[in-house]
Amino acid sequence: MSIQKVPNWLSKRAATTPERIAVIDGDTRWTFEELDQKAQETARRLTSAGAGRGDFVAVLLASTADAVRIIHALQYLGAVIVLLNSRLTPFELEWQINDSGAKLLVFDNEFKDLVENLLKNDRKTISYDELFRLPEPDIPLSSEIDLDSLHTIIYTSGTTGRPKGVMLTNGNHWASAVGSVLNLGLEPGDKWLVCVPLFHMSGLSILIRSVIYGIPMIIHDKFLPERVNISICHEGVTIISVVSSMLSRMLDTLEERRYPETLRCVLTGGGPVPEPLLRECRRKNVPVYQTYGLTETSSQFATLSPDYMDSKLGSAGKSLFMSELKIMENGRELKPGEHGEIVLKGPNVARGYLNHDAHRLQDSDGWFRTGDFGYVDSDGFLYVLDRRSDLIISGGENIYPAEIEAVLSSHPSVREAGVVGERDKIWGQSPVAFVALADSEPPIDEDELTQFCREKLAGYKCPRRFIFVDKLPRGASSKLLRRELSKLIEQRAPEG
Amino acid sequence: MSIQKVPNWLSKRAATTPERIAVIDGDTRWTFEELDQKAQETARRLTSAGAGRGDFVAVLLASTADAVRIIHALQYLGAVIVLLNSRLTPFELEWQINDSGAKLLVFDNEFKDLVENLLKNDRKTISYDELFRLPEPDIPLSSEIDLDSLHTIIYTSGTTGRPKGVMLTNGNHWASAVGSVLNLGLEPGDKWLVCVPLFHMSGLSILIRSVIYGIPMIIHDKFLPERVNISICHEGVTIISVVSSMLSRMLDTLEERRYPETLRCVLTGGGPVPEPLLRECRRKNVPVYQTYGLTETSSQFATLSPDYMDSKLGSAGKSLFMSELKIMENGRELKPGEHGEIVLKGPNVARGYLNHDAHRLQDSDGWFRTGDFGYVDSDGFLYVLDRRSDLIISGGENIYPAEIEAVLSSHPSVREAGVVGERDKIWGQSPVAFVALADSEPPIDEDELTQFCREKLAGYKCPRRFIFVDKLPRGASSKLLRRELSKLIEQRAPEG
Repeated sequence: MSIQKVPNWLSKRAATTPERIAVIDGDTRWTFEELDQKAQETARRLTSAGAGRGDFVAVLLASTADAVRIIHALQYLGAVIVLLNSRLTPFELEWQINDSGAKLLVFDNEFKDLVENLLKNDRKTISYDELFRLPEPDIPLSSEIDLDSLHTIIYTSGTTGRPKGVMLTNGNHWASAVGSVLNLGLEPGDKWLVCVPLFHMSGLSILIRSVIYGIPMIIHDKFLPERVNISICHEGVTIISVVSSMLSRMLDTLEERRYPETLRCVLTGGGPVPEPLLRECRRKNVPVYQTYGLTETSSQFATLSPDYMDSKLGSAGKSLFMSELKIMENGRELKPGEHGEIVLKGPNVARGYLNHDAHRLQDSDGWFRTGDFGYVDSDGFLYVLDRRSDLIISGGENIYPAEIEAVLSSHPSVREAGVVGERDKIWGQSPVAFVALADSEPPIDEDELTQFCREKLAGYKCPRRFIFVDKLPRGASSKLLRRELSKLIEQRAPEG
Repeated sequence: MSIQKVPNWLSKRAATTPERIAVIDGDTRWTFEELDQKAQETARRLTSAGAGRGDFVAVLLASTADAVRIIHALQYLGAVIVLLNSRLTPFELEWQINDSGAKLLVFDNEFKDLVENLLKNDRKTISYDELFRLPEPDIPLSSEIDLDSLHTIIYTSGTTGRPKGVMLTNGNHWASAVGSVLNLGLEPGDKWLVCVPLFHMSGLSILIRSVIYGIPMIIHDKFLPERVNISICHEGVTIISVVSSMLSRMLDTLEERRYPETLRCVLTGGGPVPEPLLRECRRKNVPVYQTYGLTETSSQFATLSPDYMDSKLGSAGKSLFMSELKIMENGRELKPGEHGEIVLKGPNVARGYLNHDAHRLQDSDGWFRTGDFGYVDSDGFLYVLDRRSDLIISGGENIYPAEIEAVLSSHPSVREAGVVGERDKIWGQSPVAFVALADSEPPIDEDELTQFCREKLAGYKCPRRFIFVDKLPRGASSKLLRRELSKLIEQRAPEG
């Protein structure tokens, strides 16, 4: 018999260490006891809004303390949280909400205009302000969490260009938190700074760990490097999650000579940290933990500790304690040093994609083929060579070329389009579009295409520049050869 | 779908941090890579001795590095470890081995004479020396651990006087390790000193945590307070597990004025720490974590952190993160302050008792009635008032009166016997026997009874003194009223 139910994390934490600080957001400071009371109260109000056990509830949140209480409130209800990315266009949001079948949309007041643009059916929506004024019926809340039940749906695009909802269970988040603590440790005075969006896996995982570990999360609603440096140097932040481009900006704006010893862990995702940046990190006392993780693995899956920052340059380290990793090609497991697909297994790997029962995420043995390519060296360290589907990572946001290509191809003047990433000093990468125009249509220019994209795609996904070509390079089965496009970019000097 | 298999702890740890120190035993120091190699090699040799997946294998071990490798070797095989207490008599050991159905007994060379006294059937036995000389066949070892499979059987006596084998799964031990790390944290430089027997739940749990946490265990084969103090003051021990009587002897023999700051956690089980001892702990900088735990809960279940050492004097604290606790009486949950039976739930609670399928340990909701009595205060802190069945705890060893009474009653000159504990300055408690002699038999004296007990019972269980009475106090259903015996002891001055 395996027990799949555990005490609700927040109520257990509030019972265990009620007086410890849970959330710091500007002048707002809540203890775990206060957070728990607020979450339970909010859970009851949410039932007045029609939410209940097993319901899918979409949330459009900013990074605030109120967002924290709403996420915990939904867990108290046993509802499934559909976490929306507030940088998306109404067009994109509409698609995800419809796909999830969410019956209710809860939104931060600051997204009022966005939500008004959104509504084209009779789905119920409610702002925080409205929610917090609803009656609070005296209903019992579940004191236990079923580890096998869904906690979150987070959309991620795939090879097809159609976003897929990653189905994350309570058990996935639990396993991720446990795997991480066995790697990073847990020390008195730990404080985790969240300056990545709470609607990303990275931000959400901090929210959950704060409760499981009993440590405060300090929330910054935006990433402002100067403000982050103040939190680290003067507010005792011990752990922070960033991507390379953020780390670079933090170092550029640091006024002190180096970071204090209290900063013990800088979890850095979104691709390897470039060597010059690593050198500066060493100079300024930044303990960089380079990571490899996906939404499908409930955040970090492998981590390189600072001990190996030099000797294993460019590596993402080793998989967390309960997880396994192998490199495969044509159904065969490769040897150290050989390049192939990264295949993962562990209790932190998501169950599957919503509405995609036909092809589950894992095979029958629990292995998940990431589509990413890499190798493992003879000491067992993972090196990631290429992200799946020519994934573009720009400032920590994942951009899938197929999604942008699908939008461009829907323009009547475009015959075909191919998108790849190019290096960007600040964001790591930016998308560039290759476009072949249709003969019969009046020609269009870059400005028109940019305008067209902005209506359909989140700003960070819009190509930074367009390159007009006669036709796109395609392989034997007429598959787009994006790597040929990447070569073209390397050959041409940037226009700007 | 819940994943019940995880990578083998030791191979995963050896792959993750191969060069870290795993075991320190005198001059022996093994890294995790070395321990893993030795455990795998030993696992292969064990197959030459006839052990395999699912087999019950009894082990009679001293606290040594070799014991550590044998326990991990048996886990590699997927065998079930029947952990024998080497302080037991041949009579007691024989009973446990037979009850478990162990097909093989592996023993430390130092128990050669004991094992020779033991053998009255054709069960196979093998000493370490013999085992380490066996051939090492090239068989594949399981790279995964099934969390639902049995890891250990540890015998504990109950109300009937017949020991019962507690069935502990890999998942029980895993949950205990995770629950503990979320409570105690995990810091760089952590080293856990084992000076309690490895065949006890307390010692075994350190062995398992060492691998899961990636920290060294320092093994002392005996508890010598001066040696423990040297390890703490000069070898960087950060965590130690003891019982009150050990802690008292450590403080008595400490040459330094106080313990160093490196000592961050003294887990203290076996009943509340007396106030004078706590005061001395404060003076000498001992961070006492008082605990409540049972073999059935895979070690500590509740823990009081030093912050509450004064304000919650006598409390065992709160239950670990994944666990729950309530106080019951007649099927009703009691309110804070009310006294009743301590009832527990959590993934660290054992599955049941071996060969006792009829009455499982847990009810259908997973709750385990401990038989212990106590209450929870209005802040949620547990106070244990009485251990089950008038359990006597002497120097950390559990002594069950019913077991001693059964032995005494088997003597032809004894009509009836009742055993209770009395205070003991060094051991906390010691057993005292009340004996009513049979009229028809020739009278016997204390020496004869002592001699009789020594043949059948481990030394620590033998009554320290005998009180001859005409008859024992019994209730309406002629149930022995042990609390009346305890009152008699309080009224009489000790004889010595």
